[in-house]
Amino acid sequence: MNETIHLMRRHRSIRQFASTPVSEEQLELMLSAAQAASTSSNIQAYSVVGVRSEAGRSRLAELTGNQKHVAQAPLFLVWCADLNRLQTAAGLGGGQPDFELTRNTEAFIMATVDTALAAQNAAVAAESLGLGIVYIGGIRNRPREVSDLLRLPSLVYPLFGMCVGVPDQQPDQRPRLPLSVVYHEEAYSDAGFAQGIADYDAIMAEYYAKRAGGGRTTAWSKEMNARFRPEQLRPHMRGFLESQGFKLD
Amino acid sequence: MNETIHLMRRHRSIRQFASTPVSEEQLELMLSAAQAASTSSNIQAYSVVGVRSEAGRSRLAELTGNQKHVAQAPLFLVWCADLNRLQTAAGLGGGQPDFELTRNTEAFIMATVDTALAAQNAAVAAESLGLGIVYIGGIRNRPREVSDLLRLPSLVYPLFGMCVGVPDQQPDQRPRLPLSVVYHEEAYSDAGFAQGIADYDAIMAEYYAKRAGGGRTTAWSKEMNARFRPEQLRPHMRGFLESQGFKLD
Repeated sequence: MNETIHLMRRHRSIRQFASTPVSEEQLELMLSAAQAASTSSNIQAYSVVGVRSEAGRSRLAELTGNQKHVAQAPLFLVWCADLNRLQTAAGLGGGQPDFELTRNTEAFIMATVDTALAAQNAAVAAESLGLGIVYIGGIRNRPREVSDLLRLPSLVYPLFGMCVGVPDQQPDQRPRLPLSVVYHEEAYSDAGFAQGIADYDAIMAEYYAKRAGGGRTTAWSKEMNARFRPEQLRPHMRGFLESQGFKLD
Repeated sequence: MNETIHLMRRHRSIRQFASTPVSEEQLELMLSAAQAASTSSNIQAYSVVGVRSEAGRSRLAELTGNQKHVAQAPLFLVWCADLNRLQTAAGLGGGQPDFELTRNTEAFIMATVDTALAAQNAAVAAESLGLGIVYIGGIRNRPREVSDLLRLPSLVYPLFGMCVGVPDQQPDQRPRLPLSVVYHEEAYSDAGFAQGIADYDAIMAEYYAKRAGGGRTTAWSKEMNARFRPEQLRPHMRGFLESQGFKLD
């Protein structure tokens, strides 16, 4: 164990922030860590839009499902998968730029992964500086309006947001699945899933009971069962991505 | 600056490894850091297959485009987006499990992002322990054969591999794009792209000239232009994903 691993292992999502601003230096350190992350063939297919303005944060709070911490956090980062800059570069590279690069599922995966790897480095950097973060998948609730607000061009899409600020809460850490159902040796095996999930259901029920003073004791499997309804699965995403120039062919 | 940020900023991909094995303890620390990463609504939609066997590593080296480091590294991790375990959990959760959860682009994005966030924590943990890693996107070159080899069930797909081991090289660090073309304040702007990309072209040309003793001086834009040909874009991915039970609707 070392300080870096200890830091990652004590991660908690923070949803309440002090009013202290995030300094330029802190932001630059986060972004420099982000940029140092691995990237597919050096394509660096992501962009980050930082929103500090109160108007911007309030509007984004609305657009992400009225999440008050989005308005409250002094800095909100929108992590975008970006094939637009890559297409610009390919054009500047001369010759006959092949814009088919933007037209398939693989390019979409590369940009999405590049974005996530960079963002996770930024998250770890933030926490190493004493800041707290929470990822906001709700940025995909109303992606058209988010894209218009942030003037995202074709071939750029908002993957997730991230609130950043000084934590003003100390939430408990949510337990994770037993490693035995996540890690597989040599080949995938679901032989232990029923038992592992049952064990985790018990752990999560206890966690919720403790945290909520007994008010909530939902097992994880029930929670997953209940959460994944079609209307929660953002059925607009495919259409939005196409309208934004992405193809998933 | 602190040790964690310094560590992330000095990341280099390692493609030559000593024969020293990765210990169980090191692997467990990597995986515990991975599991502590943020996950969309706690769905934890990823699995990791660890391959240590020589036969497995050799075969995976072939399947990823004859990358010798895949066979050489003592540990190869295959990071998989996994909606199968989630579907199992939803089924165990009782009621009428709604398997539509697996049927759209949003579910695909959630699983892909969960996988990437976890993997990046594992990468940082590995480097904090003095190990080196390289991501292997080539795992998507022949994903059907990889899936068969690793017995990946429906609703699980190999997103990327990761070689892990003690570094036996000290490669130079590849420069990244100027921050000015990656970070945007309040809204996206491509006003500085032409200049920023030209600057980066010069930086990369110099980097290649120095590294290769003058033999290679490709600008980044030319490299991007040349690299992104349809045949390099794994046009099979959409079909493979569908055959693996994913829908991108």
